[in-house]
Amino acid sequence: MALNYPNRKPIVHKEANKANLGMDLETMINESNEYYLNNDIAVIHKKPTPVQIVKVDYPMRSKAVITEAYYKTPSTTDYNGIYKGKYIDFEAKENHNKTAFPLANIHPHQMTHLKSIIKHGGIGFLIVCWNKYNEYYLMPYEVAERFWDAAYKNDERKSIPYDVFKKECYLISEGYLPRLNYLKVVDKVYLNK
Amino acid sequence: MALNYPNRKPIVHKEANKANLGMDLETMINESNEYYLNNDIAVIHKKPTPVQIVKVDYPMRSKAVITEAYYKTPSTTDYNGIYKGKYIDFEAKENHNKTAFPLANIHPHQMTHLKSIIKHGGIGFLIVCWNKYNEYYLMPYEVAERFWDAAYKNDERKSIPYDVFKKECYLISEGYLPRLNYLKVVDKVYLNK
Repeated sequence: MALNYPNRKPIVHKEANKANLGMDLETMINESNEYYLNNDIAVIHKKPTPVQIVKVDYPMRSKAVITEAYYKTPSTTDYNGIYKGKYIDFEAKENHNKTAFPLANIHPHQMTHLKSIIKHGGIGFLIVCWNKYNEYYLMPYEVAERFWDAAYKNDERKSIPYDVFKKECYLISEGYLPRLNYLKVVDKVYLNK
Repeated sequence: MALNYPNRKPIVHKEANKANLGMDLETMINESNEYYLNNDIAVIHKKPTPVQIVKVDYPMRSKAVITEAYYKTPSTTDYNGIYKGKYIDFEAKENHNKTAFPLANIHPHQMTHLKSIIKHGGIGFLIVCWNKYNEYYLMPYEVAERFWDAAYKNDERKSIPYDVFKKECYLISEGYLPRLNYLKVVDKVYLNK
């Protein structure tokens, strides 16, 4: 069983799998993207959380303080960028369940966005973390779409079984640098390497 | 001379040039991107302004209110997306001067970001609005870079003369739909159309 140290920074071991204890998916992806950027492998960034700024104070001698703002619904996915000349776009999701990934985790506008990215020649997918198993999968948009359409067009099940991840998605290896080498999977799945 | 109507929504004429009176560059680009998206021409979005959220209140029966937050320096440009299979990335700037565009308007990290985008096979440029002339130019990154390097490596002038825009940049036509048809210029400059 994986040990968790809440409210504490994880002790960094150099071995894979132990290194990432307690680190959330967003941090792992951000660190991987930093590694890709610093090593000139890819330029991929997380988009800032969109907020509607209502009030800003300008106190003397100090920087502007936003004193009233609200979260807005994002109209796109969280991550995009460029890799080997290709436009890359994805959404990252954590799943706390054991047997299936609920489709309610995905927003309709994220599906619409990924669909049009692919239509325009880009690479679109999801990265899903199964917290219970400490596993990370790249799920091609097309797999998500099949279950999405079954659920919302044909009123079928509203989740994707674990088994589908094992059979139709791609396990991303965890490591030290980068934390999550998801571009290695992109190479294999989309660039035939 | 162009008339401005501050604090009023502009009256929408169908003729070009008159249509955009009083509309700022960001709004014009956002509306153009919406047009491109709705007509399935390209998927290009403005990134949200990055803020560091410090305090959030959760009042009963209403949505979360951010009560303390600060502006962060963005590490990338404002706009990116995909067009005809190509990764597109640009920064938009308004210039209120008559004879030159001050390089101080561009942040160093924006130049670094655009440089690496091009290195990885993407299309990178700036859109500069000359408010005094009601003119909009696509400036290829390479033109900006030449002046940037001259200014900060060789300590030469810290601005780009208007003349350079006329000779080495590309005028973007204003219209009704889209407001600023900058992808037409991208076709010409980068896609040989």
